[in-house]
Amino acid sequence: MSTVFEKSLKLHETHSGKIEVVSKVAVTNKEELSLAYSPGVAAPCLAIKENVENVYKYTSKGNMVAVVTDGSAVLGLGNIGPEAALPVMEGKAILFKEFAGVDAFPICLDTQDTEEIIKAVKLIAPGFGGINLEDISAPRCVEIETRLKNELDIPVFHDDQHGTAIVVVAALINSFKIVNKSFETARFVVSGAGAAGSSIIKLLLKMGAKDIVVNDIDGIINRDEKADYNFLKAEIADITNPENIKGGLKEAVINRDVFIGVSAANILSKDMVKSMNKDAIVFAMANPNPEIMPEDAIAAGAKIVGTGRSDYPNQVNNVLAFPGIFRGALDAKAKKITEEMKIAAAVGIAKLIPDNLLTSEYVIPDAFDHRVANVVAEEVKRIAKEQNITR
Amino acid sequence: MSTVFEKSLKLHETHSGKIEVVSKVAVTNKEELSLAYSPGVAAPCLAIKENVENVYKYTSKGNMVAVVTDGSAVLGLGNIGPEAALPVMEGKAILFKEFAGVDAFPICLDTQDTEEIIKAVKLIAPGFGGINLEDISAPRCVEIETRLKNELDIPVFHDDQHGTAIVVVAALINSFKIVNKSFETARFVVSGAGAAGSSIIKLLLKMGAKDIVVNDIDGIINRDEKADYNFLKAEIADITNPENIKGGLKEAVINRDVFIGVSAANILSKDMVKSMNKDAIVFAMANPNPEIMPEDAIAAGAKIVGTGRSDYPNQVNNVLAFPGIFRGALDAKAKKITEEMKIAAAVGIAKLIPDNLLTSEYVIPDAFDHRVANVVAEEVKRIAKEQNITR
Repeated sequence: MSTVFEKSLKLHETHSGKIEVVSKVAVTNKEELSLAYSPGVAAPCLAIKENVENVYKYTSKGNMVAVVTDGSAVLGLGNIGPEAALPVMEGKAILFKEFAGVDAFPICLDTQDTEEIIKAVKLIAPGFGGINLEDISAPRCVEIETRLKNELDIPVFHDDQHGTAIVVVAALINSFKIVNKSFETARFVVSGAGAAGSSIIKLLLKMGAKDIVVNDIDGIINRDEKADYNFLKAEIADITNPENIKGGLKEAVINRDVFIGVSAANILSKDMVKSMNKDAIVFAMANPNPEIMPEDAIAAGAKIVGTGRSDYPNQVNNVLAFPGIFRGALDAKAKKITEEMKIAAAVGIAKLIPDNLLTSEYVIPDAFDHRVANVVAEEVKRIAKEQNITR
Repeated sequence: MSTVFEKSLKLHETHSGKIEVVSKVAVTNKEELSLAYSPGVAAPCLAIKENVENVYKYTSKGNMVAVVTDGSAVLGLGNIGPEAALPVMEGKAILFKEFAGVDAFPICLDTQDTEEIIKAVKLIAPGFGGINLEDISAPRCVEIETRLKNELDIPVFHDDQHGTAIVVVAALINSFKIVNKSFETARFVVSGAGAAGSSIIKLLLKMGAKDIVVNDIDGIINRDEKADYNFLKAEIADITNPENIKGGLKEAVINRDVFIGVSAANILSKDMVKSMNKDAIVFAMANPNPEIMPEDAIAAGAKIVGTGRSDYPNQVNNVLAFPGIFRGALDAKAKKITEEMKIAAAVGIAKLIPDNLLTSEYVIPDAFDHRVANVVAEEVKRIAKEQNITR
C-alpha cells in the first residue's frame, strides 16, 4: 500500500470522517434559545408559510447543496455502493466549502434504480438550494440529471458530466492559441462515451466543433450501429462522426488534432499519437492512470498534454469548475445551470492565463488558484441574469 | 408582533439560517487534497467496500443524525409544509450539536404520504448514524417510527413522542417524592392522544401506572367506542381506562392525582383542578399557552405545576432528553432506542436533583444544566450493552 493511501486511512480514522454540522448562531442561554428555537422560531416559519420564497431569506437552503450519489461509479473504483462512496462525497462537500464557501452535504442513496433516485432527490429538495449529482454511472446519470432539471426549480448539475467538460474546454481555448487552431477547424477524437464524454461532446459542438469522432469500448460510434446502442450512444451517433467512419481507436485518431480521453489507462499508444496531425493536443484524463503517460505522448510528438493528475502539468481538475458554478448559481438564485453558463465559465477560466504566461505546460490554472471560483461564479451570475432564469 | 419574534426574524435573516457544513480536515494544498480527496480517499472507500461496518470508522456517519420532517405538525403551528418547517429543523440540529456534540442535518420532505416518508428515510439512511423524526402529525408518526425501527438497523426516535414522555417521567419521579405518591398508586389523566400523549401513556404503564384515563377532543377514550378510533386511539383504549369511564375532561380529572396535558391552551379550569385529589400534580405542556396557567393551577390547589415554558418553574423541555439519547445511542453504536433506555434516561435525569434540593418548583433540571446530556448518554449506553443491541 502506498503512503498516500496509508496516510488517508489514518486521516479519516483520526477525525471520524471529514464533515461536521455547526451552528451559525449561539444557543448558550434561555434568551438565545428563545430566538433560535421556540418560541421565536415561529416567526420565520410563518413568514415562509406565507411566501415560500422566504425560505431563501431565513434558512440555510440558499447556500446548501446536496451531493447525491448511489455509489454506482465512484472514482475509478466502480460500483462500490452508497456507504463506501461516503468518503468521496464528504470530500466533495469540503471542497465546496473550501473553494467557494458553499455548504454541501452528502446524500448516499440506498438504491440504484433510476426512478427511485429521481424520487428521493425530489423528496429531499425542499431543504436544498442545489443538487450536485456525483459518481452515478452512465447512461442513467444523464437521464436522472435531465429529469431532475425538468422537475425541480433549483440548479441540478452532474459534476462528472459537466465539470470535466468545462475544464477541458477552458484548456482547449488556451491550447488552440498556442497551436493556432480553432474549435471550428480542429478534428477531435473523444475516447469514452460515458458521463464525461457525452458532456464534453455537447460542449465542443456548442463551441463550434464540426468534426468529432467518438470511440468507446465497442469501437467508433457510428450511425449504422445505432440500433445496438443505449439512448446516450444513439444520441452521440446522431451528432458526431460526420464521415460516419468505423473501426477502433487506432482508426479514430488518425489525422486528428485533439485527443480527449475519459476512458481507461494505457489505451493510447505512441504510434497512435504519431498518426495524429502536427501539434497534436492530448488530454488523457483517465484516473489514476491516463490513456497515455505524458512523457510518452510528448515523445510521440504531441505538443500539449494534460491529465487528471496533480503530479504532471495541465491538470484537468473538476475543482476548477463545480465550486464556482454553484457559488454563482446560488448567488444569482438561478433556477437552472445552462450550457451558456458552462461555456462562459470555461472562457472565464481560460482568460485567467494571460497570453504572455501561456505555455504548452500551462494552459489551465492551478487547482489552488483561488481566483478561479470567483471568476466562474461571476460568469454564471452574469449569464443567469442575461437568460432571466433567476428567482 | 412581540419582540422575541422580531428579534428571531432578524437573527435568521442576518445569518441566512442557522447551520453550516464545515470540514474537520484541511484542504489548502495538493498534499492535503490528495489525502482528503483523490487519490488517497480510495483507501477508506475500499476499506468500507470490504466491510460496510468500517463506514463508522472512516466517515462522519457515526455522529450524524438526520432530523426528518414532513412539516405536518410543526410546533403549535400545524401543517405548514417542509420549507416552513426548516427553521425548526435547523434549530433542532444546532441543539443536538450544542447540547451533546451530535452532528445533525435537517431533511425536509416534500411529501406527507406515510409510505413515501418511510421510503425516503430508508433511501437516505446509508449516510446517517441515526434518524430523529420531528413534527410529523399523529397517528402517522407512530406508524412511520414503528416501521422504520423495524426496517432500519440504526436508531430511530420520534422526539415529539418520546422526548416529552422521558422528561415527564423524570419530573414525576421527583414529584412523587414530594407528595408521597407513586406510579403504582397514583391516578393519572392524560389530555391529548397524539404523538406525545401516546408515548407518555406507554412509559407511565412501563413505570407501573395502573390507572390512566385519556381524554382528547372527542372525550374520554374508552373501549365501547373503539370502532370509531384510529389505530393509535384503539391501542390506547386497550391499555387505559380500567373502569371504562366515559365523558369529557371534566369527568376525566375528578379524583385524579396527576394531570398531564399535551393538548390545547386553557382547557383545564380551576374548578377541574379543584376536583382533583389532594396534592395534585399538574403538567400543562401545551405550547406556547398551557392548558392552565401555573398561577391558576396553584390557586386551585395544585401542589406541583410544570409547563413547556421557560418563564415558569419546572419547564418540561425535550432538550433534556434527545441530545443525550442520541449521544448515548451513537457512542454505543446501538441499533435501536428501547423503552428501557428511555426509562433509564428519565431516572438519570431525576437523580440529578438530590433530595435536599428538591422543591415543588424544582422537580426537573434546568434546560441548560449541562450535566443532563452526559447522564442520559451514560444511561443509554449502559442499557444498550445490557440489552446487547450494539453493533
